[in-house]
Amino acid sequence: MYASILAGGSGTRLWPLSTPATPKQFLRLAGPETMLQDTVRRISPLCPPDQLYVVTFDSYSASVAEQLPDLPREHIIAEPEGKGTAASIGLAAACIAARDPQAVMGSFHADHAIADEAGFQAALAFAEHVARDGSLVTLGITPDRPETGYGYIEMGASHAEQGVLRALDVKRFVEKPDFHTAQEFLASGVYAWNSGIFVWRVDRILEEIRRLVPEISGVLDEVGAAARRTGGKVTGEVEQVIRNAWPRITKTVTIDQGVMEHADQIVVIPISVGWNDIGSWAQVAGLHAADAQGNVVAGLDATSHLAIDTSDTLIYSTTGRMVGVAGVSGLIIVDTPDGLLVCSKEHAQDVKQVAEFVKKRLE
Amino acid sequence: MYASILAGGSGTRLWPLSTPATPKQFLRLAGPETMLQDTVRRISPLCPPDQLYVVTFDSYSASVAEQLPDLPREHIIAEPEGKGTAASIGLAAACIAARDPQAVMGSFHADHAIADEAGFQAALAFAEHVARDGSLVTLGITPDRPETGYGYIEMGASHAEQGVLRALDVKRFVEKPDFHTAQEFLASGVYAWNSGIFVWRVDRILEEIRRLVPEISGVLDEVGAAARRTGGKVTGEVEQVIRNAWPRITKTVTIDQGVMEHADQIVVIPISVGWNDIGSWAQVAGLHAADAQGNVVAGLDATSHLAIDTSDTLIYSTTGRMVGVAGVSGLIIVDTPDGLLVCSKEHAQDVKQVAEFVKKRLE
Repeated sequence: MYASILAGGSGTRLWPLSTPATPKQFLRLAGPETMLQDTVRRISPLCPPDQLYVVTFDSYSASVAEQLPDLPREHIIAEPEGKGTAASIGLAAACIAARDPQAVMGSFHADHAIADEAGFQAALAFAEHVARDGSLVTLGITPDRPETGYGYIEMGASHAEQGVLRALDVKRFVEKPDFHTAQEFLASGVYAWNSGIFVWRVDRILEEIRRLVPEISGVLDEVGAAARRTGGKVTGEVEQVIRNAWPRITKTVTIDQGVMEHADQIVVIPISVGWNDIGSWAQVAGLHAADAQGNVVAGLDATSHLAIDTSDTLIYSTTGRMVGVAGVSGLIIVDTPDGLLVCSKEHAQDVKQVAEFVKKRLE
Repeated sequence: MYASILAGGSGTRLWPLSTPATPKQFLRLAGPETMLQDTVRRISPLCPPDQLYVVTFDSYSASVAEQLPDLPREHIIAEPEGKGTAASIGLAAACIAARDPQAVMGSFHADHAIADEAGFQAALAFAEHVARDGSLVTLGITPDRPETGYGYIEMGASHAEQGVLRALDVKRFVEKPDFHTAQEFLASGVYAWNSGIFVWRVDRILEEIRRLVPEISGVLDEVGAAARRTGGKVTGEVEQVIRNAWPRITKTVTIDQGVMEHADQIVVIPISVGWNDIGSWAQVAGLHAADAQGNVVAGLDATSHLAIDTSDTLIYSTTGRMVGVAGVSGLIIVDTPDGLLVCSKEHAQDVKQVAEFVKKRLE
């Protein structure tokens, strides 16, 4: 199996730890490895480094190369600027198709955490099998709460089965719902969260991109022609083709809205593997063991903090300073050399506003 | 009028801004001047630098000299170690008595804020007048809330009057009451907070110390004898006397519990002058103008913070880092190079615990 990892996220939701200079995928949030390294290791039983491509921005190429020393340098695909995930995935598919036009590829995000790796790998192996018939396979996350921050997938008739795993026809993709609708989706049992993790044959996804986003397809054809001359390696020649053609993509198009919502022959494999896209600090807390009061202390040693009458609070510090907390509950406290964040867990999404504010100030 | 300023506080309640190295009296909490400088300036219309003594610890002498360039160096009285305010005030009284045995002195703390300076000065002038008859005058703060953090003074019959000011006999001193008792005190109208600000003739306070704390009095006699030889200047000779005699003081005695509670001829002048002993971060917030949401931002410029859906919160930062706050209320957030404090205003007193924890860690 081939794979592409999207590592272009610009990291505003975990400010002040994630910054434009060091977005989430390059951070150690869940353990000793960075999110990108975790992602690569997690799929490595199914995808060796030689069949892996990482799509990122020019400015992050060096970080990707540094964090993934086993990845061939010519498997790093650097975009001059972000044009959405349809173009990013298309680039990887074009390079892979240059080596094997009917190869099956998985598409992953570099900043997701998954607790049950074995379960995830089993689902991926099944997805690879299902995709051989031309289906566009999406991994759907079985919801455990009425989350309003994700898109949902309505599941239909059974398409294939293997052990406990099932692939179901996708009836429709649904944008982020309101809370009431999310509650209905959860209760119905026929909706899954859209994880943004896909498995498909490269000819099939390129065919759908050609049909639905022709502007991108023209660029991918040129990149594919160059990649066939290099055996799928992203050499200076291929990079030059990308750089020259890139400005012709005028619209930012996501793979979800631009392609999957209108594509044919889509199936979903629902999974429950402890998936966490770490979209906010509230989710970072979920990656760590909490103490009896529900507090999570990360990034600093135990002698550097004192929490009095405090519960359900995340203390994340990388400064080595003493952190004293008293009489608070349900808070997120993040202390890094770049800044200080104090917010309620309910307001974890507001961090994006703070990060945008910081970005504007620096401009 | 002579004066002594007690500048020996070790500053645990405003951690992480106040530290053993830089306690509260040396900090700029309320404006461009430090608390010590404010204290000196506030009494300067009644007490010129030549009649002012500052009692502090050896380790703070240099800070006092630096912050008060107009104060004669020989008016800094440095204690080898803290033995309580009875000894501190006694030292100043002994030096002043060496110049004028019947001088009236005021005793002040170096870390109180007072909003109505003219009102305070008028009360002091009246206190000086009252003290001439031998009364030990204490300034009592008319309470505006059922505070449990202060001692109270029960006021009795009128002793003297001048315009709106009255001096009343003190019936008794009461230790910090519980909340219910504090409510009764407030409602009765005959209790004032003990501010720890006193005015008296030096011969009278030395007489009471002799009667009530003879252990200290012996030491003060030696210091006084030396000070008479130097005209009240704390020269190397006087310093040597203090250093030699100091270990003979075996008990720590406060002027309140050790002397005032048992002394004769005590009167209180109740005042309402916006007194604030800045005993906690919650009180620091009261020194600054709040915005429409009740937030106070101090120590950092407006472009360095963003507060979203936040109310009744103090943000005090000296690091220059960006501070982002969202969805919180009634919090104290203090960010300095030495540490980070996040606590509810109700738990402002717990800061002391954090500071003690830090102190132990550093030992």
